[in-house]
Formats: sequence, C-alpha cells, structure tokens
Amino acid sequence: MANTPITIAHGDGIGPEIMAATLHILKEAGARLDIEEIEIGKKVYLTGNSAGIAPESWESLRRTKVFLKAPITTPPGGGFSSLNVAVRKTLGLYANIRPCVSYHPFVPTKHPVMDVVIVRENEEDIYAGIEYRQTDQVEECLKLISRPGSEKIVRYAFEYAKKFNRKKVTCFIKDNIMKRTDGLFHKIFDQIATEYPEIEADHRIVDIGSAKLADTPENFDVIVMPNLYGDVLSDVAAQIAGSVGLAGASNIGEQVAMFDAIHGSAPRRAGQNLANPSGLFHGAILMLVHIGQQDVATLAHNAWLKTIEDGVHTFDIFKEGVSREKVGTKEFAEAVVARLGQKPETLKTVEYKPDAGSAASDAKPIYSSPERQKKELVGVDVFLDWFNGKFYGVADELGALVEKVNGEGLKLQTIANRGVKVYPNGLPDTFTVDHWRCRFVSDAGEGNTIDKKQLISLLQRFNDAGLDVIKTENLYNFDGAKGYSA
Amino acid sequence: MANTPITIAHGDGIGPEIMAATLHILKEAGARLDIEEIEIGKKVYLTGNSAGIAPESWESLRRTKVFLKAPITTPPGGGFSSLNVAVRKTLGLYANIRPCVSYHPFVPTKHPVMDVVIVRENEEDIYAGIEYRQTDQVEECLKLISRPGSEKIVRYAFEYAKKFNRKKVTCFIKDNIMKRTDGLFHKIFDQIATEYPEIEADHRIVDIGSAKLADTPENFDVIVMPNLYGDVLSDVAAQIAGSVGLAGASNIGEQVAMFDAIHGSAPRRAGQNLANPSGLFHGAILMLVHIGQQDVATLAHNAWLKTIEDGVHTFDIFKEGVSREKVGTKEFAEAVVARLGQKPETLKTVEYKPDAGSAASDAKPIYSSPERQKKELVGVDVFLDWFNGKFYGVADELGALVEKVNGEGLKLQTIANRGVKVYPNGLPDTFTVDHWRCRFVSDAGEGNTIDKKQLISLLQRFNDAGLDVIKTENLYNFDGAKGYSA
Repeated sequence: MANTPITIAHGDGIGPEIMAATLHILKEAGARLDIEEIEIGKKVYLTGNSAGIAPESWESLRRTKVFLKAPITTPPGGGFSSLNVAVRKTLGLYANIRPCVSYHPFVPTKHPVMDVVIVRENEEDIYAGIEYRQTDQVEECLKLISRPGSEKIVRYAFEYAKKFNRKKVTCFIKDNIMKRTDGLFHKIFDQIATEYPEIEADHRIVDIGSAKLADTPENFDVIVMPNLYGDVLSDVAAQIAGSVGLAGASNIGEQVAMFDAIHGSAPRRAGQNLANPSGLFHGAILMLVHIGQQDVATLAHNAWLKTIEDGVHTFDIFKEGVSREKVGTKEFAEAVVARLGQKPETLKTVEYKPDAGSAASDAKPIYSSPERQKKELVGVDVFLDWFNGKFYGVADELGALVEKVNGEGLKLQTIANRGVKVYPNGLPDTFTVDHWRCRFVSDAGEGNTIDKKQLISLLQRFNDAGLDVIKTENLYNFDGAKGYSA
Repeated sequence: MANTPITIAHGDGIGPEIMAATLHILKEAGARLDIEEIEIGKKVYLTGNSAGIAPESWESLRRTKVFLKAPITTPPGGGFSSLNVAVRKTLGLYANIRPCVSYHPFVPTKHPVMDVVIVRENEEDIYAGIEYRQTDQVEECLKLISRPGSEKIVRYAFEYAKKFNRKKVTCFIKDNIMKRTDGLFHKIFDQIATEYPEIEADHRIVDIGSAKLADTPENFDVIVMPNLYGDVLSDVAAQIAGSVGLAGASNIGEQVAMFDAIHGSAPRRAGQNLANPSGLFHGAILMLVHIGQQDVATLAHNAWLKTIEDGVHTFDIFKEGVSREKVGTKEFAEAVVARLGQKPETLKTVEYKPDAGSAASDAKPIYSSPERQKKELVGVDVFLDWFNGKFYGVADELGALVEKVNGEGLKLQTIANRGVKVYPNGLPDTFTVDHWRCRFVSDAGEGNTIDKKQLISLLQRFNDAGLDVIKTENLYNFDGAKGYSA
C-alpha cells in the first residue's frame, strides 16, 4: 500500500520528546507515512512572525492535508496571536473533536465508566467575537449560527459515530430561549439524524444536559454542540475523565485536518524524559483512522491500553498501589512497542472498522443548497442611545419623542430595553439602560411589506429629530413566516 | 419585634404539602411573619390568564416585597408562558442565587465537600432572546451586557458573601474571546472587588473554570456569572452536589425578592404525603435572612441539618444503611420541629450574623452613573445578504461591487464573513456564507470622525447599487479608544 504524506511539527517544551515517542510507536506499528516537517511555535514567533508559522509552511499543509502537531509555547508579552486560531481560521477547520475516556481503575477518576466524544463547531456562534460598544452603558456581541455551518458539524458528528462504531449522538442546545439560532442548529440536527437510522439521536437543553454530563457521563456517547457550549463542555468532560494529560483531539476542515494533544507544552518538564506522550499519541490514533490506516490504529491503540493496564506509567499518572513501574517518555514508548499485538484484558479493546471502500459511495455533500425561501422586508428595529439620567420610568418620555418620527407608511410598534417591552404600556418596575430598540412596521399593520427607501427616510427623520441611532436590524418574513423574535 | 408581611403561593402538585410543612417549621421556630396568600399556577392559567398570575396578585407582591413561592404546573399544550419569567421580568429580579451544598455522608454524592453558591445575572446577556433571520442561511442573536446590570449583580454577590460569612467570590467569564462584553463584566468585577478587601476575589475563564467546578467543587465558594454561564453552571453545581431535591433559590430585585425550591411540582407525587419539603424550606431560610430574621434562620437551619444527620429522610433521599427512618412530608417537618434548638454534630453548624444595624450605614448605591465618555462616530459596519451559489472564493467578486459605493468621505476598509476577514487579500480556503460585514471608515483614515448624514447617503448608494443591506452597526470611539472589535 502506498504511503500517506503527512506534515508534522515538533513544537516547543516537551513537544519534541512526545513527538519522537509517538512517531516511534507509529513506525513500529507499521504506519505507512511519508513525513514532512515544518517549524512552528516559539522560534518562529521570535523571528517576528506574529502567528508562529512561516508562510511557506502553509504549502506543506495544503499539500499533505494532514497535520500532526506537538504543543507549542507562545512567548510571554503581547503581540503574539494564537497559532491554533491562525491554523483553524486559515484552513477552515470547522470541527473540533475531543474523545474523553476514563481508564478506571488504572487512572484515578470519580467516573469509572466514561467514554464521551465532544464534537464542537469551531467557526461560528458567539466566538466569532464581533463586538460593539455604541452607548455609554452597553456592550454587544453578535451570535451567528448558519445553516451550512450547522450542517457541516452535525454531519461530521454522525459520520464520526459511524466510523468509530458509536451508538448515539446527542445535541446540546438552548432553543427554549434562543429559538431562532439554537433552534436552527436543533432543526438541522433532527433533519440529518434521519439519514442515519442506525444511530440513536437525542437532544438536551444545555443547562440540564451539562448537569447530567458532569454527574453521569456514562449515559453519553457522542455529543455535538455549537462553539460556546462545546468549548465549556469539552473542558468539563476531559477534566472529569481524569484524562487532560492523556487526551488527543482532531480539528477537521473540508481539505485539511490537524491532530494534537489537548495539553500544553509544559516547558518546566522539557528535556528530562519525563513527559507522558499519550495525548499526542491519541491525536495520532485519530489521524491514522482519518487517513484510512485503521489496522495500524487498532494495533497501536490496543498496545497502549495494555501498557496502561500493566501499570507502566509516566510520573503524571503514577500512583503507589495502582501503578507498577514508573517510566520516562522513551521507556513508555518502548513499553507500548513491546506490547504491539497484545490486547487489554480489563479495559475495552478497540477495533477500528476499515472503511472497506464504502466511504466513497456513502459520501454525502456536507452541506446543502436548498431553494431559497421568499424573503420580504416587513419592518426595522432601530436602536437608540438615549439617557436622561434615570433608570426607571422614562420609557413614555422616549416613546413620545419616537412617535414623532412616524410617517411615510411606517409606524412605531413597540420600544424594548434589553429584550423587555417598555412602550407602550410598560411597567414602572422595569429597570432600563441607555440602549433602546424601537420597532417600526408598516402602518397598514405588521406583516405588510415595506421597502428600503422607507427605511432610509426613517433614519433621516430620526437624525432630523436629534435622536441618536446606533444600529439597525431589518425585519423579514421568510415564506410568510416571521424571521424575528418578539 | 414587629411582624414582617410576606406573600406566599401554595402552587400545584406537591406545592401545597411542602408549603404547609415549611410554614409549620417556620412558625414553630418563631418566625415573625404576616402572611398574605395569592393564587398562581394551573388554576389561574386555566381561567385564561396566560401568565398564571392574576393582575391583583401583583399588588400583594409590590406591597409585601417578599414572595415565598411553591412550585407550579404549567398546563400541557401551548399558549402558556413561564410564570417565573413573568415575575422576573415584571419585578426586575436581576439576581438568581442558588446555594449548592453536599451533605456527605448522609446524602450520596461524588463530592463530599461542596458548599458553592452560584450568583447568576438574570436580566441580560444572550438570554434577552433578541433574534433575527435576515438571510437564507444565517440566524443572529444579540448578546447585551450593560455596566449598571453588571454592577448590580457583582455588588449583590459581594454583599451576599459579606452577609453569609463567605470568604471568596470568583467571577467566570470568557473575556479572552469576548473582550468587550465579558471584558466589561470582568472589569466591573475587579472594580467592585476593591471595595470588599476582606473578601478574596478571583476569576476564571469559563471553560476551565467549569471543568474545575465539575471536578473539584470544594475549591469554590461564591461564583458570580453572566446569565448564560450561570444558567448552565447552577444546574451543574446542584446536580453534582446531589441536592437538586434539597436546594432552594432566591431571585432578587431592587424592590421585590422571590424565594423558591429549584425543583418542580412533581404532580405524580402529589397528595400522598411523600414529598421532601427541603427545597422550599431552604428558599425560606434565604428569605428569613433577607428580611432580617437571622435568629430564626439559624435555629431552623440547624434543626434541619440535625434531622438529616439523624437519618430521618423522605423517600427521595432514603438509602438503606445510611438512613434510619423513612418519613412522609408532615413527619419530616415534625422531626425538624422536634430538633429546634439542636445543632448538627457531623455536618457544619450554620450561624447567620445579625446585620446589627450596620447594613444601612454600609449601604452603597447598587449601580453608579459615572461621567459619560466622549463618543465619536468613526465608521459603520453594513451587513449584506449576498450569495452567488458558491461557498468559496467569492469575496473578491463582492468586494468589487462594494468598492463602487465608496464616496462622500467614506471608503470600504474590509469585508468579513462570520468574523473572518475575507477582503481584501482573503484566502481561498475560507468558507463563506451569505452574511457579509462591510466595514466603512473615513477616507481620511480609520479613527477620523464622520457624521450620520454620510451613513444615510451610504445606505442610499447601497440601495441604488442593488445590494441588499440587512443591518448596520455604527462604529464609535469612546474617549478616543476604539469601541468595536477587529
């Protein structure tokens, strides 16, 4: 079989040691790899490259499309941006996958039975970091959820479940509150789930779902989530499994994929043959399956499980009474190599199914282009910066001012403050800040279409009235259904 | 001492039973209360009142300003809105406080040492639910964080810590990503913390903070958070403490405060003298401290702890080998009453400090009105709905179209898609959806002021060019510092 070209980076701190150990195991397990090396991290940052990766390195990544990355050190002081963010954004790595497994009784955990995979959307949601301050008192951040972005991540989760023999995919969302954004994610989850009848699909509201995950992780399998929830819960899951030092991750794009350990470069442990190479090793296992070398992944992973089970442990997981032999980085790798061909007895054996050529015929487009719905402009929310020194009982005063800009077919319907309606007929108990949403609809009634020229004239009238418009959000119907919240 | 008027509601399901048990303990402990009763919940919903509370009931709440509420049942079928949301919004209850305590070895938990209080902001953040669909592919939700809103909740957390003898307040935020919104919350936390030198203050990034909380809750004391994080982590904390059925909560406004159990009305258990009244009882303890009856709270709470310690347990926490006597709702209340004056031996005794008249002199305004900063309009982000059927490599085409609307002192600076810059000099790997942000600044350079008329003309030119503007966000400097993200 032909070798697969991959790109690797040795990284900083303990990076070179754990990379050497990982590659040694892979080689002895018969991995069929042609390895290109690139330089990333501290050295590159210190040449004045603020992203920590040289421009020519992108060529290698775009050529091999597979990147096994050791942890790096970002130098102290400002001006350096995150290498992971640069790689993710540049290469469009939309999926972050983190398996969180406990190895009871060989590694201490409060959760003896735990084998959860967090699949996190990694390009959108509120983590796009689009923020504005437009009044004295209020800061705003935009949360964006897209149909194709959600399709990509949800489909990836189900394909992952299929490839790794998983039984269930759970979706975490908060669509009782965020009916449109999280509602879209949920709707797409339900649609795509029907294409995988052999895999169980369910969903949880993120608050109670998180509580159950933290308490009884044994009831979960694969969990797919928008970016923010995934960020928080992938850290929760790794921590409670007791496996932060043992876990690997993959970052998947349409073209390129990156594999790494979830821990950092631990500079204090560097150069002492101390570090545990297991995190990067698990990243490499994910890589082997990704490139179709399931046979090698199965062989190497079972040997690793047997090593852990035999009590051959590096310092970080060594525990008197549980462990049998404390070893260094190199010796740990040798112990795994010595067990190639063996399987664990207590821990669960792994068996990665070969794709057997069916992958290609099964392949579905990862996002769709359904026919566009009919979009009609039916109003506008005009946001004002307005403050008269008081936090209570001022909405009617503002209402009277805003009523004056009615005209040319548009009329003020409501004014709201932080999502609570305050005009007309507001309540005296409502605390208001200096950030007001004035909703205008057709004076023929809500739902009637208006045109852009009416909006522009409205903004002109606001300006003439001396009212400080800070932002606008147009209101649309799609195929006749409201596209905006109350 | 004069009695304190309070309003109570018996609720639905197990509500009446646990309310009766709670009031019995309070009475025997010497609580000085004048009780007004209101009707809420199922019966009220079924009269056609969609909020589950009659208009005249608000008068009682506004008069007594203290509400002890049993759980209610929302009838099946749509059209009923959440009573809790109605009460919170109407009365401006900005703080949700949930103590999460484990009672090892008397109630099973994986976390024997846990005594955490979650203080959740309850009016703003992304939970305002302000959402828009403006393109075929993208949904948007606005996250709003205000200075006075953050001041209120952070100050409440520190005042709570002071009143309840707590040593540390931790702030959870994600301000490495949301530098402006979560950054504001963090900045206010740091400012207010300096006014409480006797209380330790620290902060955690919400991902790793959540992981640590789920794994080692014994290291946390009071945690204050924006709405979303607080929602998720208050559920996580209650669940892992093993105390969902035992926990109470308070909801605090500037005028009115509401106290309740965190569990629901459990209709299947109703009318059988089975239910555990401890959740509502703990809500009542918070109420007693709130109204200055610390002596009664101390007496009743210690008797409750002694009852739990003596193994007198309702069915929900009864466990062979740990519990000694399985009792019903009424008998549990009697057991607590019989122990009034006793203190626990294994569990920690509680001792609520009397406010001793110093509260009034210590009182600080809960939000400030600092001098307004100088605000200058320096640009605008114009968002477009644009799609030519492709998800890659189309930004330059759009860029050429948008360059044509430059003029009258404004020029296109960048185009971004879901927060990633795609024009000029975008990358071919970047996946783009139909939602584009076009940033315009003064043609004299970014940071130069512009005026509203220039913005209105720009929108006119967009319209003339046939480009579909869906929303705008103005860009401002405050005292010369940028008020917007890159």
